[in-house]
Amino acid sequence: MALRDTHVTMAHGGGGRAMRDLIDEVFTSVFQPPGSEDQARLTGTALQEPGARLAFTTDSFVVTPLEFPGGDIGKLAVCGTVNDLAVGGARPLWLSAAFIIEEGCEIALLRRIVATMAAEADKAGVRIVTGDTKVVERGKADGVFITTAGVGVIPPGRDIGAARIRPGDVVIVNGVLGDHGAAILAARGDLALSTDLASDCAGLGHLMQAALAAAPGISAARDCTRGGLASALNEMAAEAGLAVEIQETALPLRPEVVGVCEILGLDPLYLANEGRLVLFCPEAEATAALAALRSLPEGRDSTVIGRASQGQAGRVTLRTAFGGARIVDMLVGEQLPRIC
Amino acid sequence: MALRDTHVTMAHGGGGRAMRDLIDEVFTSVFQPPGSEDQARLTGTALQEPGARLAFTTDSFVVTPLEFPGGDIGKLAVCGTVNDLAVGGARPLWLSAAFIIEEGCEIALLRRIVATMAAEADKAGVRIVTGDTKVVERGKADGVFITTAGVGVIPPGRDIGAARIRPGDVVIVNGVLGDHGAAILAARGDLALSTDLASDCAGLGHLMQAALAAAPGISAARDCTRGGLASALNEMAAEAGLAVEIQETALPLRPEVVGVCEILGLDPLYLANEGRLVLFCPEAEATAALAALRSLPEGRDSTVIGRASQGQAGRVTLRTAFGGARIVDMLVGEQLPRIC
Repeated sequence: MALRDTHVTMAHGGGGRAMRDLIDEVFTSVFQPPGSEDQARLTGTALQEPGARLAFTTDSFVVTPLEFPGGDIGKLAVCGTVNDLAVGGARPLWLSAAFIIEEGCEIALLRRIVATMAAEADKAGVRIVTGDTKVVERGKADGVFITTAGVGVIPPGRDIGAARIRPGDVVIVNGVLGDHGAAILAARGDLALSTDLASDCAGLGHLMQAALAAAPGISAARDCTRGGLASALNEMAAEAGLAVEIQETALPLRPEVVGVCEILGLDPLYLANEGRLVLFCPEAEATAALAALRSLPEGRDSTVIGRASQGQAGRVTLRTAFGGARIVDMLVGEQLPRIC
Repeated sequence: MALRDTHVTMAHGGGGRAMRDLIDEVFTSVFQPPGSEDQARLTGTALQEPGARLAFTTDSFVVTPLEFPGGDIGKLAVCGTVNDLAVGGARPLWLSAAFIIEEGCEIALLRRIVATMAAEADKAGVRIVTGDTKVVERGKADGVFITTAGVGVIPPGRDIGAARIRPGDVVIVNGVLGDHGAAILAARGDLALSTDLASDCAGLGHLMQAALAAAPGISAARDCTRGGLASALNEMAAEAGLAVEIQETALPLRPEVVGVCEILGLDPLYLANEGRLVLFCPEAEATAALAALRSLPEGRDSTVIGRASQGQAGRVTLRTAFGGARIVDMLVGEQLPRIC
């Protein structure tokens, strides 16, 4: 054990021996990337199938607090990128992980985050194959920021996306909405609220693969992160050139989340999720899609919440419990910063 | 023009309309990524050649100041990742770019950085195909941090790496050392020094391809970034299980860099570079490699600086001008933080 420090110092970012020790002991000993060069070298037979496409995505994670009920920044960083690949119809294969660490960060915290990342990668069937570590002075970052990028393979013939949504497609979500946003809000301690809420953060790769196998007609999917279900539906409706109507009574919401929202004047449709996807599917395949989604724990509470239709392109409407209708617009301003 | 703000606010990271406007106007209008889904979907015929391998790498950039003589953080972010791919023998294809922005960051600055990135990507023949934007509160980051990840293809049969270095291989660098480190140091204004130094920051993809075409026996290459030439050579010597000796009189150094180092008690062997690679090559191919390197502007000053040999594994020695020898160890502690 060459690493005797308990906290990160500027030397751990300097490119010399201290950095090498930190990287070896905290990161590569756990992630076990292939080889020791600066770039991972990977062979993917799935990538070489004629017609296969490569999917590539990235996200930075700046959540505060770094650890919260239901997860930590590492879990978000793995699941978020896995999910971005999965909702595009890709099978996630490889991740990169880059850490920007504030001087003074506790090394034990880094080890916990890295352990979470390795465990989530295992669950998702992906490998963290390359990475980077930078250190900035105290006060120039907030604990640790993580950026992951992900590479996956889209099998030949698969082509889903918002532009493929058709009028009549039903809208499905895989479980209750807003848990992540509400859990982070409660974990910040700004509220006098004590709740049992935990983040819904989960990798959805296996779930998406199961849904696509059962319902190959699925036209599009998104994960509902920042901006919540409302923002995802607005973007998808606009790209599809269709209207979308969702039913208030069909929305799966926990009473605690509704309660938090009522107290704070928030709308659960805009609360962030980290383990929730919204997908569009022809009505004829909806039963098969639901059955496949419900067969996995991350999709147990899957349900139909609405439908796409001809109508004003990009308009999302909520049909209320009383039969009225209100427009669900894009989020204006910010609801809750540093949520992911 | 929906974006009327001059500075980034927390709303620009909130997942709603303000974020969409910032992303559309500042980022995607310039990078022009393919498609509008959260993940890029890419077809690479080179990837599908039997025996081809995918190269994947990432780096975060936290340099201060954000703009400096010879470049800015965006140039570093593109060139750094392109170079990590290139020195592995890969042809760089696609980059991701994730931005962590401090509240209050000037949007004009972001536009300049994005323009640099697009120009450097063009030069390097890569595309920035996917990205992310996060905003953190004032004081929780330092202007902007950028993380790029890169995907490239290693052609069938190409396999270079430190483990392939053989005794007798000569050591080549592509130009003067330490310009980036010295230029950043001078740009910080902590010194009363006024110099004409500019960062050497450059993409080395074409240079590396030219060298490999002329000298296919090249055994290994690294870019000499944080920790400088000394750290790169130490890592390579250790992985090769060989000793490396370099000649002080052969080291290409600008008088200004030597001067800055003398004043500050720094060693130019440890100064960061961002457009310099060190490569190992059988003596029989050294002339061909040098000719190919010198044929391109980034390699005009290429020169042989030393040789690998049997001897104590991992030991790097400098033969001085007076015929003495000193051990060149890994950097201990930090020489200069926030250099890249």
